[in-house]
Amino acid sequence: MSSSDIFIGETIGTAILILLGGGVVAAVVLKASKARNAGWLAITFGWGFAVLTAVYISAPLSGAHLNPAVTLGIAIKDSDWSNVPIYWGGQLLGAMIGAALVWVAYYGQFHAHLTDKEIVGGPGAQSSQAKAVEAQEQGAGPVLGVFSTGPEIRNAAMNLATEIIGTFVLVIAVLTQGVNDNGNGLGTLGGLMVALVVVGIGLSLGGPTGYAINPARDLGPRIVHALLPLPNKGGSDWSYAWVPVAGPLIGAAAAAGLYNVAFA
Amino acid sequence: MSSSDIFIGETIGTAILILLGGGVVAAVVLKASKARNAGWLAITFGWGFAVLTAVYISAPLSGAHLNPAVTLGIAIKDSDWSNVPIYWGGQLLGAMIGAALVWVAYYGQFHAHLTDKEIVGGPGAQSSQAKAVEAQEQGAGPVLGVFSTGPEIRNAAMNLATEIIGTFVLVIAVLTQGVNDNGNGLGTLGGLMVALVVVGIGLSLGGPTGYAINPARDLGPRIVHALLPLPNKGGSDWSYAWVPVAGPLIGAAAAAGLYNVAFA
Amino acid sequence: MSSSDIFIGETIGTAILILLGGGVVAAVVLKASKARNAGWLAITFGWGFAVLTAVYISAPLSGAHLNPAVTLGIAIKDSDWSNVPIYWGGQLLGAMIGAALVWVAYYGQFHAHLTDKEIVGGPGAQSSQAKAVEAQEQGAGPVLGVFSTGPEIRNAAMNLATEIIGTFVLVIAVLTQGVNDNGNGLGTLGGLMVALVVVGIGLSLGGPTGYAINPARDLGPRIVHALLPLPNKGGSDWSYAWVPVAGPLIGAAAAAGLYNVAFA
Amino acid sequence: MSSSDIFIGETIGTAILILLGGGVVAAVVLKASKARNAGWLAITFGWGFAVLTAVYISAPLSGAHLNPAVTLGIAIKDSDWSNVPIYWGGQLLGAMIGAALVWVAYYGQFHAHLTDKEIVGGPGAQSSQAKAVEAQEQGAGPVLGVFSTGPEIRNAAMNLATEIIGTFVLVIAVLTQGVNDNGNGLGTLGGLMVALVVVGIGLSLGGPTGYAINPARDLGPRIVHALLPLPNKGGSDWSYAWVPVAGPLIGAAAAAGLYNVAFA
Repeated sequence: MSSSDIFIGETIGTAILILLGGGVVAAVVLKASKARNAGWLAITFGWGFAVLTAVYISAPLSGAHLNPAVTLGIAIKDSDWSNVPIYWGGQLLGAMIGAALVWVAYYGQFHAHLTDKEIVGGPGAQSSQAKAVEAQEQGAGPVLGVFSTGPEIRNAAMNLATEIIGTFVLVIAVLTQGVNDNGNGLGTLGGLMVALVVVGIGLSLGGPTGYAINPARDLGPRIVHALLPLPNKGGSDWSYAWVPVAGPLIGAAAAAGLYNVAFA
Repeated sequence: MSSSDIFIGETIGTAILILLGGGVVAAVVLKASKARNAGWLAITFGWGFAVLTAVYISAPLSGAHLNPAVTLGIAIKDSDWSNVPIYWGGQLLGAMIGAALVWVAYYGQFHAHLTDKEIVGGPGAQSSQAKAVEAQEQGAGPVLGVFSTGPEIRNAAMNLATEIIGTFVLVIAVLTQGVNDNGNGLGTLGGLMVALVVVGIGLSLGGPTGYAINPARDLGPRIVHALLPLPNKGGSDWSYAWVPVAGPLIGAAAAAGLYNVAFA
Repeated sequence: MSSSDIFIGETIGTAILILLGGGVVAAVVLKASKARNAGWLAITFGWGFAVLTAVYISAPLSGAHLNPAVTLGIAIKDSDWSNVPIYWGGQLLGAMIGAALVWVAYYGQFHAHLTDKEIVGGPGAQSSQAKAVEAQEQGAGPVLGVFSTGPEIRNAAMNLATEIIGTFVLVIAVLTQGVNDNGNGLGTLGGLMVALVVVGIGLSLGGPTGYAINPARDLGPRIVHALLPLPNKGGSDWSYAWVPVAGPLIGAAAAAGLYNVAFA
Repeated sequence: MSSSDIFIGETIGTAILILLGGGVVAAVVLKASKARNAGWLAITFGWGFAVLTAVYISAPLSGAHLNPAVTLGIAIKDSDWSNVPIYWGGQLLGAMIGAALVWVAYYGQFHAHLTDKEIVGGPGAQSSQAKAVEAQEQGAGPVLGVFSTGPEIRNAAMNLATEIIGTFVLVIAVLTQGVNDNGNGLGTLGGLMVALVVVGIGLSLGGPTGYAINPARDLGPRIVHALLPLPNKGGSDWSYAWVPVAGPLIGAAAAAGLYNVAFA
């Protein structure tokens, strides 16, 4: 794979990952969306099929890492660091593009949610009782949640531990996949497996922190959130931003270490 | 593939796509249905398995485009427009047949929903409180929603943008599938992948407009809605009808353009 | 395949199909079940994975028809009726065994549901308000629904039409699968496809009648319901019993006819 | 496969199985979790993807039994008991490690749930009405449910019967998989099948007892529950502990017996 194929593949793939992954959160939490309140199962499957779609599209170009932690794990496993900066650059750029596309696709919903403007017509029109319930859930919190993760109970050690464990499972699954898949790397069926593993991590380990398990997935959209001209958007919670970067990288390194000891 | 195989395959396949896709909306929104209020997850998975079933059945005859936007994307990619009219004709005819079959399968439910006639016996029998809630949701809106899409916030530029983005993801996934699938086109496993991509697009990008992402899926059933003798059915919202035709075609052209630049 | 392999395979396979399919309905509708009120999505996926499991287990012995309508469709397609009685016999016997096993697995739940006996301890212990809601839903209707299907709106012509359409989709998918699968019949991947098609039919066409789409699935358990010593079980609704037998057989014949015209 | 590969593979695989399986229960039932009240469908799919992930990772090392009942069934089928103690030892150790990891990942949630301490900020902050509802569901019961199973209606014969039937279905599916899979054992696709079979067993047969269907899955975490320094954790319900050990072993033996008669 050439450097330009890697960069283009990771940029396109991560953009689609974040477009669909951020999109499902927008669909479930923002006002005036048909998927409003569709629940946690919709969010976890939505992120899983985001992985499926993105892996599927970018695998022939770049091998579909789409996650700096996956790139780190593979680099440790193979002791080959030559392409790491290209992968990481494409992933961060792609994540920012994807977050901006979520904003375009849900432009009206973001503004309705943040400004409580009257929404006329359609199933979005609400009774006064429904309006009261929505007022409670309104505000900047859910909007930031479309872009970046945040913990239910804020505690750096605990949140870091959860992110380390979740990413460990993801990266050990990706690394052993090479064995199961006859060394062909990420093919079509492999993409489905990884997607379902990500659904599983979301269902099982997403409760405490919202499972970033991917530094680019959290940092890129957080930067975009800080830059976008959203009214009443509030802060971008930068004090937490290091946790979903550091946790996944530590988890990936641990998984690669175990892989080299037990599976290689 | 002969012209007649293409036409028959697309007609049968798109009929089954719309029968199952429209059917799941009917199942969830109409009165006196066992699936009533099963929610957005049921609708998105229902449409996905509609794609799976329809691709599965029609792939050996026509390659299972089932969507004028997919046909456009493939025509641009291959610079081959010879069969486009046959594909488009079969798709529109099939979509109309499928919509009519939804009406047959849910005949009683459509009439119960539109006329509030007393439904006796079975789990459909409702308490007076449930009746009040249902009265609110009753009427022509949900019935039109079984046939065609409509936006939560009506704004042509925004709605067009959402449909363009959703279809872009679908078509780039279909086009790159040819690469992953060793050039064999849409086979059994490929059909599963496309189905899950469509579930993902629905979950992630369906919130604002209901994800037509297919001109035939929207236009064919809208024509049938205008023709059917449904009581109190209201208008067919023709002023919106151009958006779910134009948006998907633009999105498909953009995807084919990116494909030819980055993946070919 | 020998006659005894066919009979044993269909008996075991259909028993597992009905054990899991009837089981998920029991899980969702009966009192004192952890899955109580898990909803329509749980029921449709439960039936789908019942198909997956049963096909998976019985395919090497009998080809996994598990449904007299599927057997009819294949017989018409191949003009070979020699094994039809063996298939049908195994299917009906298996369906009765499966229904009896549901009764064993949910013995306590059936009796709790039908007799409102006090359930002590565990998450099943209910507040007095919850008890009132449950009283409404209690009785013989949900228990019969564990065994056999029934319509939301009772009308023989309408109910027959819905069952014909649903079975048509199932059988045309099974018959064309032979083409996609390189003539290998129902293998592992084919079983997954058929399972997901059945989930799709349930989501999309199950609303009006509960999608029998299989004469043995409905008739066998109905016989068992009539025979079992369940307290306060009420009637077995024999006046409806012919619809989920005739509808699927007609739908299968229509699908085989279309197959021979368009796909052969 | 060497003895050390088997032991390491089963330990790692069962640890991941229980980490994700226990994790999804924690996510759904504990306070201050984003997945709180996501429902039975989330729990059953979460356990299924736990199986998928664990099989996927451990299959190349140990063949991915991950369940003493599966090991027993295969030993009876093959009349080869040489590795049974190694498998069982790794499975029990792995289950204990996995349960401890759930405690680490959900440390804050366990303590919030058991001590009702004030949770400040985040979507976990609750209205006073929500607090009242939560108070009802609080306590030691749901916490034990993260580790081990318990019946809705406590009756040893009934509970044993349900566990026997559920494990019978699992083990007959695993044993016949060898036939479908051309004798290659548990590969990537086989892992998906087994995962979906487990989702199906959960949906269809999990209602009465919570489907242990695996002695290590229940016993290992129960031991960890007894050892962990959780405040107000209550007892570990040792009087029930033999049922989810004996039932699955009996069910597996029955399945292997049927396999040797009907399929071998």
